[in-house]
This record gives sequence, structure tokens and C-alpha cells, in this order.
Amino acid sequence: MATSIETFRQLSPSEFFYRNREIAGFSNPGRALYQTVRELVENSLDATEAHGILPDITVQITREDPSNPNYFTITVEDNGIGVPPHIIPDAFGRVLYSSKYKIRQTRGMYGLGAKMAILYGQMTTGKPFEIYSSTPRSKNIYYYKLMIDVRRNQPIILEQGVWAKKGNWHGTIARVTIEGEWNKRVRDYVVVYIKRTAVVTPYANLTLIAPKVGVKDDPNAIEVISFTRVTTKLPKPPRESKPHPMGVDLELLKLMIAETKAKRIKDFLIREFQRIGETKVMEILKEAGIEPDRNPKSLSREELRRLYKAMKSTKYISPNPEPLSPLGPELIEIGLREVLKPEFAAAVTRKPRSYGGHPFIVEGGIAYGGELLSRLDEIASEAIKSQVGPHIALLRYANKIPLLYDEKSDVMWLVVDPSRFAWRTTYKLDQNDVIAVLIHVASTKVPYKGVGKESVANVDVIEEEIRGLVQELARKLRLHISKKRREKEAEEKLHTFLRYISEVSRSLAVIAGDGTSGPNEHIKKNIEEKLKELAYRKVGLIEARR
Amino acid sequence: MATSIETFRQLSPSEFFYRNREIAGFSNPGRALYQTVRELVENSLDATEAHGILPDITVQITREDPSNPNYFTITVEDNGIGVPPHIIPDAFGRVLYSSKYKIRQTRGMYGLGAKMAILYGQMTTGKPFEIYSSTPRSKNIYYYKLMIDVRRNQPIILEQGVWAKKGNWHGTIARVTIEGEWNKRVRDYVVVYIKRTAVVTPYANLTLIAPKVGVKDDPNAIEVISFTRVTTKLPKPPRESKPHPMGVDLELLKLMIAETKAKRIKDFLIREFQRIGETKVMEILKEAGIEPDRNPKSLSREELRRLYKAMKSTKYISPNPEPLSPLGPELIEIGLREVLKPEFAAAVTRKPRSYGGHPFIVEGGIAYGGELLSRLDEIASEAIKSQVGPHIALLRYANKIPLLYDEKSDVMWLVVDPSRFAWRTTYKLDQNDVIAVLIHVASTKVPYKGVGKESVANVDVIEEEIRGLVQELARKLRLHISKKRREKEAEEKLHTFLRYISEVSRSLAVIAGDGTSGPNEHIKKNIEEKLKELAYRKVGLIEARR
Repeated sequence: MATSIETFRQLSPSEFFYRNREIAGFSNPGRALYQTVRELVENSLDATEAHGILPDITVQITREDPSNPNYFTITVEDNGIGVPPHIIPDAFGRVLYSSKYKIRQTRGMYGLGAKMAILYGQMTTGKPFEIYSSTPRSKNIYYYKLMIDVRRNQPIILEQGVWAKKGNWHGTIARVTIEGEWNKRVRDYVVVYIKRTAVVTPYANLTLIAPKVGVKDDPNAIEVISFTRVTTKLPKPPRESKPHPMGVDLELLKLMIAETKAKRIKDFLIREFQRIGETKVMEILKEAGIEPDRNPKSLSREELRRLYKAMKSTKYISPNPEPLSPLGPELIEIGLREVLKPEFAAAVTRKPRSYGGHPFIVEGGIAYGGELLSRLDEIASEAIKSQVGPHIALLRYANKIPLLYDEKSDVMWLVVDPSRFAWRTTYKLDQNDVIAVLIHVASTKVPYKGVGKESVANVDVIEEEIRGLVQELARKLRLHISKKRREKEAEEKLHTFLRYISEVSRSLAVIAGDGTSGPNEHIKKNIEEKLKELAYRKVGLIEARR
Repeated sequence: MATSIETFRQLSPSEFFYRNREIAGFSNPGRALYQTVRELVENSLDATEAHGILPDITVQITREDPSNPNYFTITVEDNGIGVPPHIIPDAFGRVLYSSKYKIRQTRGMYGLGAKMAILYGQMTTGKPFEIYSSTPRSKNIYYYKLMIDVRRNQPIILEQGVWAKKGNWHGTIARVTIEGEWNKRVRDYVVVYIKRTAVVTPYANLTLIAPKVGVKDDPNAIEVISFTRVTTKLPKPPRESKPHPMGVDLELLKLMIAETKAKRIKDFLIREFQRIGETKVMEILKEAGIEPDRNPKSLSREELRRLYKAMKSTKYISPNPEPLSPLGPELIEIGLREVLKPEFAAAVTRKPRSYGGHPFIVEGGIAYGGELLSRLDEIASEAIKSQVGPHIALLRYANKIPLLYDEKSDVMWLVVDPSRFAWRTTYKLDQNDVIAVLIHVASTKVPYKGVGKESVANVDVIEEEIRGLVQELARKLRLHISKKRREKEAEEKLHTFLRYISEVSRSLAVIAGDGTSGPNEHIKKNIEEKLKELAYRKVGLIEARR
């Protein structure tokens, strides 16, 4: 540690993150605006679809104050389950305040996102955060105007209000004012984010209302982009589950013991974990040399270590995948076809697997040809031109969040990188081919590389699954391409046949006729028909051509 | 926010980081071992050179416990200024416990590194952290055995001891046991890290003692790698400074006001900030509409916002670069020549600049030819083969820390990327050329993309400076290459001349002689000499060849 003359002080989590906002994606005004939109939209999606509600989400970005042209107000409204009023101040006004040991796939993960937007707004504009919310069963709508006491990591309530509900609206409206930037580049990032979100949430209504870029004479000009749902089928919501014994570490084990009501270590293990039953628990406790009746809170440090080691060295059934909510191949293929209008698209959802006790599923799709190339411009924000071909437009998702930044440091890129993956040798793609690959990693704990949630770290078993997925997809594409090639060859052969059939038929008709008066038209037609049928069958095109 | 039925709880900073260890670089056992070495070495370097002490640092990695072959003990010893005993428990046992508003270039930045190693050790092996330390003036050596109470974010002291010093040793020995991995890949990362550190700290003795990889029959075989200092010249240590008015945000301003002893806002501004004098302070307060005599603690929220806005809209002298400690061009060039043995090397340190009130300096070097290619294998860990040429081996540093991971998402790569930078067109490099570029960003606040400190975020003015640096370096290289090319052409011309000089001299000697008895040898020699001189002069090689 540094020095003998330095004075030390404990930073609150709020202070830490506001000092180091870059690590949460708030590195410059443009990026901060993008990140704010993301965090609020992701909260709204979690508050709707994870609870069986078809999402209606509106994002509005406004530049209201002419004296501060760089101040932007971002308002996100959803029709979600709302936040109970007594929880609102802490849920939005305390950094690292988060739900407890809940194991379930959600977009939010660090208990940090919306609060970073609030902190960033507060530190750049000094303006408070506003929230309106109502739960489905509530008779009221609650309003709070909040700031965060950074030093104490506590909410400061500046104003609050209650209104009786007239209709049956429920949901949340969140509003924050930040110092931002709005130009073509930032606008494109936000729009691509919304579009890519729409690709995997065809069951959502998403609307973006934002200042129009590049309109000099009318500062109030706006642009509206909306996506209307094309299906009312929601993915199966994730179900909460208990932790898997491989998913805990020694510290978490201690915390769980401190909080359990179980009086015997045996009951604690069975009750608080999945995949531990009567047989398994005896196996673990025997290995650890601990009596089943011991009070878990009485275990010594050494006994805890033995218990932990025994838990880790036992074999279990894989973690329950019910807390996961994958998209499924149909949805992925619909998304790719809808947005990229390709000649070919295919999708695959792999079987659940796990890393360190956390279940995960890898799934994805591939698209090729058709209008792909022209449509990629609107959706693939990172350049594909500087690559050594074939060119791969990678659409990355983690827990249904589109990831736009830091592509090259993502494990997904590691796998599809044309300098590593055998696109050309094994899968017969051409140097100049352009394909789109969509990959979705869904997990109760996505190993992001940073709290800004922009790239997935390199965990071996996840990389392996992604490679398996991409190989499956590439095989499907190769089949399509070879089939296309065969069809093309067949068609060329057919043309050759057809060119001569008329001639041959005439000659045959003459031979088959009376030999004096030229070809018999009826016989000729008949022969021609037969020969054509033969030709089509020969090149394998019967079904297709009839 | 998520749901009405969820229970919420405040996470302590320890809990947050131990749950999300990937974001601090502890994403798998191998990486965790590398990260542990890094964090401890960086603490040791900060505790020595920043205080004018020539560093002697020893890193020892051992695999002691045969029953747990994946447990590794990492011990780092330095001869630094030590940690006073009363501070040790908090300095190592509390996450986000850090020095207060200190503005100075250091390797450590988040108050997190060593504690993450401790947390990781604790959660994977359950073993405590040990530290021995003594300050230069202390008569004792102090020992602590510590764990972190994760839930309370507090140290737990398991053991402590005091010994009277016999000699005058001072420094720190830190020891942590973690679940790690030691194979060729991990070993190479650690070795490259130490080597790259050595490149920019030629004034340090660095020793690494680690298990030898791939020795099956002797599990105790070790490998020792050491770097002995080649100079005793330390870079000028960074000097602490007060914050620059552009470097604070509204929240920091509030915190500073809460802690100031100044009774008048005018005194507060002059005393607590750099670059604010008598004239400037009146300008700011007039703009904000605040009386100079006002007690800073009496300002309303609205007045604070006005003050902040006025501070931000005033022009100041750039931040004082004294808290920076750049390497300087000599050191960089020595480092490059020593390690890469190139044919050509050059280095440049740019002028200090600032972003958002934080001073920074960009500097670096370039190397080409000689033994470069073969020597790069040992030092450039990320592949350069998959690049479109010319091939750039980028050696990234931030506050003297070598950065090895996530190269492609670093702003330094953005600048040197051959698909963006005009290496070929403007700087005449060839598709097949290989060069090494070293870039060092030094700042009181490096905008890292993550707390793992592996890549620098894209801040416009930093990118601009890096581009300026690389252009300067590329120009120097171009000069060298054109000179080399000219010399080569000259040499070829000379060879042509020389081939004929003997012949021509003989003929001239015959003409100049009596015409009967063949060439006069004396005259011939004389003519030859003169012609050679002429030839050398003609191709511009006189100085070089004489």
C-alpha cells in the first residue's frame, strides 16, 4: 500500500462509482446518454416481460433548457409491475442495493445501472431524478423526486406525492436529466440499440422519440422510431431457484449460514440448495467429517472449510435451467428474417450447461444473402470492412441485451473471428462473402467483463458452447450453399438438355411418322413432354419444377 | 426496477466485488493468479519509486500443499516505505478504503487491487492474508494475519505480532493463497508482465521465483527470472497537487465544501483549488452571483449549481503537470533498445495536456528492424499475425503499468490499427513490415475501461494526443527508412562506378604515358584514387566511407 503520510478514508459505493464512472460506461457525454437509455430500458423490460406482461415502452429524449443546450432529459415509461412506494427511495437512491441471492436470468445484474444514470445526472447537471410508479394492485400512483447523498450512499427525498388512480394503469415512469451529447453518431448508437433490442423482443412495442439530428432551423424537430409487436407470444418467464452447490463460494456459504433458520446442518443444505437430497447430503457431510445434527452456526472455520471442500468435490446433477429464459430458435429466425431479409436464415438453441454452478444457455442464428448486405448498415454498428474476409457481422446478446461496444474483446468474437474459425476451409465460404451471426448467451450470471455490460469474459465452457453453436450454424449454412450450388449446376444441365429436346423430338417424330409428310405434331409433342420429364428427373428438379 | 415481491438488501462493497470478481480481472484461476501478482507488484512499485527509493522487488509463487495442487501462495516483498501498523488492517481489509482526494500519478487507483486478491484467496481457499511491514523510521516489524468480513466490509485480525528490528530493513511482505492455475499460458503472461514492467523500470531489481512448468518428475523444480537495474536514475517522483477547477464535478464540490475549514467561499476556492487566484475567484463569483464573503456551507442547492456552472465556464491555465511522472524519451529508447535490439529506435514525450481537469502526458517509442522480430515473441503476448499488414506490435502502458489484455478495445489500438492509420500510404511502410510501438499514457486519472485496469477508454483529447505521438514516431521512422533506402541506392551506384574505375584508370594512364610501354603504374594509381574520391562524393558517402 502506498504511504505512511497519506490519510485514508472509506469511500461509499456511490462515491466509488461516481468517481470512476467510466467503468460503468459513462465515459463521455455521448456514451453516457446511450448508457442512460440502455439502463432504463433494460429495467423496463425486466419489469414487464419477466412478469408475463407484454411490454409497451416509450423512450423520450428531450433538450428542454435553451440555456443549457447540452442538458438532456431522458424519460422512460413502461407498463410493468411498478415499484412499491416504500421501496422506491432505496431502490433508486442507494448504489449496490439489490435483491437478495435471487437466482434468475434478468437484464439488470449489478444493482447499479439506473443509479449510475442518476449519479451521472446529479454530478453533471445537479438535477434530481423523478419517478412515478404504480403496482397493478395499488389504488394510487406515487411520485418521488430524489437525489443521492453520495457520501452516505442514501436517498434524499426532495418531494413526494400520491394520486388516486382513475384508470388501471400500472408501471413506472423514470426521468433523469444529464449532460449529454446528441449528434449523428450518438443517435445512431441509440437507434441501433433499440433496433437490436426489437430483433429479440418481437412481442414488445418500443417507441423512441428524440430530437432530430441535423435540423438547424427548427430546434424542436423530433424523430419518432417505433416497433410494433408482431407476436403476442412471450418467452417463458424465468423461474427463481435456489443456488446450486457448485455456484457458491466459501464466503457465500458463510453468509447463507448466518441467515438460515435451519437448526441442523443437514436441513440447511437440503433446504437452501438445489440438487442436494437425503443421499447427497450424507455423502457431503461424511466427506467433511461433520455430524448431520450439528447447528450450522456452530461450525468452526476449519469445519466450514472442510464442508466447502466436500461440497465442491461431490458430483451433482447440473443446475436447474428453469431460471433461464432463452429466446428459442423460432424467435431468433423470425428476428433475423424480419430485420435482415436474407436469402437464408437458421437458428439453434443449445442444451443448458453450467459454469461454476451457474446455468447458462447459448443460442443463435446465421443469415446469408438476399438483402443482408444493404440492411446490415442499419444494425451492425461496428465496422466489418477492416476484417480479413469472409466478413462476419456479429450481433451479440447477453440476457437479451444487445451488446454494441468492445466487440473485439468479447469471447463471442474470439470464436467467430475469421482468422481463427474455419469459415473458408471447412465451411466453404468465400473471401468476399458477408454473413450475419447472432449469438445470445443467457445465464443467471453472465460473466461480463465490466459493469457497463458490453462484453462477455472468456470462460472456457462458455467458449466451448459458443463454438459448438457456431459450428452447427455454419454447417446449416454450408448445406444451403452446397444445395444452391447443386441446383445451379442442375439448372445449367437442364438448359443444355432443353436446348436440344425440340430438335431431337422433331427427328424422332419423323422417324416414328409415315416417313413422307414431315413430323407428326402430336407425336412430336408427346415425345417432347416425355423427354422434358426425363430431363427434369435426371437433374433432380422434378418436384421443384412441377 | 424489478418487482414488488422481491426483498432488497444493501450489499457492502466487499460483497459486490467478490460477487462480481470478473470485473476486477479475477475471471478464472489462471487470470486470477496473474492479476494477484500484478496488484501486489504495482503496490510495491508505488511504495518504492514514488518515494525516491530504488525498487528491490521479489515475487515468489509456490505450490506448497500437495493435497491441494491448485492452491498457490503468492508472496511479494519490497523495500518500500512500509505501512504504519495502525493502518494495516483497514488498508488491506476494507474494500474502497482509499486515500483522500490525493491527486498524483500512481499505479494503484481504485483502492481495490490487493483487496480483490485477498477476497479471491479467501473465497477460494479460505486462507487468510499475511503481511509483514516496517516503515523506515520504525524500530519494529509488524505482522498481521487478516481476513475480510465481507458482509461488514471490515478486517478481521486473526493474529498479530511485533518484532524489534535488528537491521534497518523497511518495506512490506504480502502473502496470499489463492486457487490458481500454473501452466505455460499463465506462466507466459506473468513473465511477459514482469518483462514489460522491466522495460519501463530499468532502475528496479525485479525477481520472479516460480514453479517450473512441464517438469513432471520434480514437483519442486523452480524457475528464477531476474532483472537487475541498469541505471540508478529514478524518474522525478510525482508531486501531489490540489484539484483543478475543471476536474471536479458538482458532487465533489459539495464534498469539499462539507470538509473545508474556510469561512468564506472566496478563500475556499483559492485555498482548495489550483489555478484559482484573486482575479479568477472574483470572475467566478461574479458570474455565479455569489458574494465573496458568503460562508461556503451556507450556499443553497441552487447557488451551488450556479457556482459549479460558473467554475466550468471560466478559462483557466491547464492543470499543473507536477503530479505526473512520465518516463521521458531516454528511458523509453533505452528500454526498447535493451529488450528488442532493433536496428532503429526513437522515442518522444509529448507536452502535458488535460481532460476534464485531469492532467495527462502521452509518450512513447517506435522500433524497427534488427533483432526485433525474433525478440517480439517474448514480449508481445497478443498475436500480431492475424492483422492486415504492416504488423504492429503494440506495447501499451498506463501509469507505468503494462497492459496485456483487451488490446483491441483500447484507444491506443484504435490509433495504431493498420486499417486506420496511414502506415503504408503516408509513412511508406510495407505490407510485410513489422514494427513495435510503445505508448505510455500517464495521468492522475487514467480513464480505464474497467477496474481490472487492462484498457484505456476512448477520451477524445487523449486519442488526439496519441495520434500526434504516433505521427511523430512514424515520421522519424520514415526518415530512417528513406535514409536507408538512399544509402542503399548510393551503394549500388558506387558499385557500378567502382567496377569501371580500374579499367578507365588504365586507359587514361596509357594516354597520359609515353604511348609505347603500357600504363604507367604510378599515374594509374593516382587517377584511380581521384576517381574513387569522386565516386564516393558523387553518391554522398564521403563521410561514411572514409
